[in-house]
Amino acid sequence: MQNQPDTRFRRLRKKGSRDFALACNIIDAARICHVGFSLDNQAYVIPMALARDGIRVLLHGSVASRLMKNLGGGLPCCVTVTILDGLVLARSAFNSSMNYRCVMIFGQAGIVTGADEKIRGLEILTGHLMPGRLAEIRPSTRKELNATTLLVLPLETFTVKVSDSPPDDPSKDQDAPVWAGVLPLRLKAGTPQAAPDLAAGIPVPKYLRKWTFD
Amino acid sequence: MQNQPDTRFRRLRKKGSRDFALACNIIDAARICHVGFSLDNQAYVIPMALARDGIRVLLHGSVASRLMKNLGGGLPCCVTVTILDGLVLARSAFNSSMNYRCVMIFGQAGIVTGADEKIRGLEILTGHLMPGRLAEIRPSTRKELNATTLLVLPLETFTVKVSDSPPDDPSKDQDAPVWAGVLPLRLKAGTPQAAPDLAAGIPVPKYLRKWTFD
Repeated sequence: MQNQPDTRFRRLRKKGSRDFALACNIIDAARICHVGFSLDNQAYVIPMALARDGIRVLLHGSVASRLMKNLGGGLPCCVTVTILDGLVLARSAFNSSMNYRCVMIFGQAGIVTGADEKIRGLEILTGHLMPGRLAEIRPSTRKELNATTLLVLPLETFTVKVSDSPPDDPSKDQDAPVWAGVLPLRLKAGTPQAAPDLAAGIPVPKYLRKWTFD
Repeated sequence: MQNQPDTRFRRLRKKGSRDFALACNIIDAARICHVGFSLDNQAYVIPMALARDGIRVLLHGSVASRLMKNLGGGLPCCVTVTILDGLVLARSAFNSSMNYRCVMIFGQAGIVTGADEKIRGLEILTGHLMPGRLAEIRPSTRKELNATTLLVLPLETFTVKVSDSPPDDPSKDQDAPVWAGVLPLRLKAGTPQAAPDLAAGIPVPKYLRKWTFD
């Protein structure tokens, strides 16, 4: 049986919240999360793609994956989504920090078994990870669907932490002759690289140029 | 007592390795990691800054933090460093994926207690997170050092996974009239934002313009 996760804010309380809309915004801005779980007293943290479907988050992977079997079997997990927004340069190392948005979701995932629900969930994932692309690629085959496990985790027990402030130096440091401020960071797309086997004359799709990465 | 972590490569074996130099390269290119551990049968995954000091990684936090106390007390943990390098757009959703570099480090952290070693470790962290800045900011005070816990985790038991390939579509999909390839992603710095309380006439430091974010 799973205990209740301890989600009390102990440190930096003013940065913490349980705001559902804020959690959704952060998840929707991310492409990946880090999934943590424990097996035989050993912690594991694994990066995975994610998307949100209303009040739950979706993860997917191979049916052959031990990870998917364990998670789908109800192993307690923590799914953490972090977006690094900037470096906060204070006048001292001690007061320097980072700006970020982070959601930690606690719970037990379940496997989606209904065929229609699974197709819909996987399309939500594709639509989130590569917006616009679904209209252009072929539908998944039955074989592909059978080779994929779709997991859902309720967006029910979660905490949000957001740090988005300029440096906060004590007054005695504020006269130091050193620059202080925030260096914003953002994931940006570079030049699309065509597959070596791409047929001539197929242009880079327009939807791809609209993708943003928060 | 801690069990041995299960670090066998089960899925996508060709992407896996235990190459120490490669692990170092990935860690050195990252500013943050995700630290996973389990307490009372509940998994937690928390983003933290990290740096590498030879054959060990460094983490730091407040002495008041429960997390630091637990990790420093030898709680088995998994420190995962992930750099998302691109989206791999195949001709189908099923074969689409992501390019990334990932290191998972397993073990038990310890607290650095020696004053000189702690100062040196924290300077390695600052030097990694904000290269060049140490020469410009004041040294940490004894009070600040006492308020900070420095953790070391041996870079001993780890796995590396790297995915850096173009889409690999089956031959039956290769004639589909849809663009396929890789959209590279990279964390990039925006325009530095001066602190509201910054005195006039202090320019943005030159070292800051050289920072790269892999």
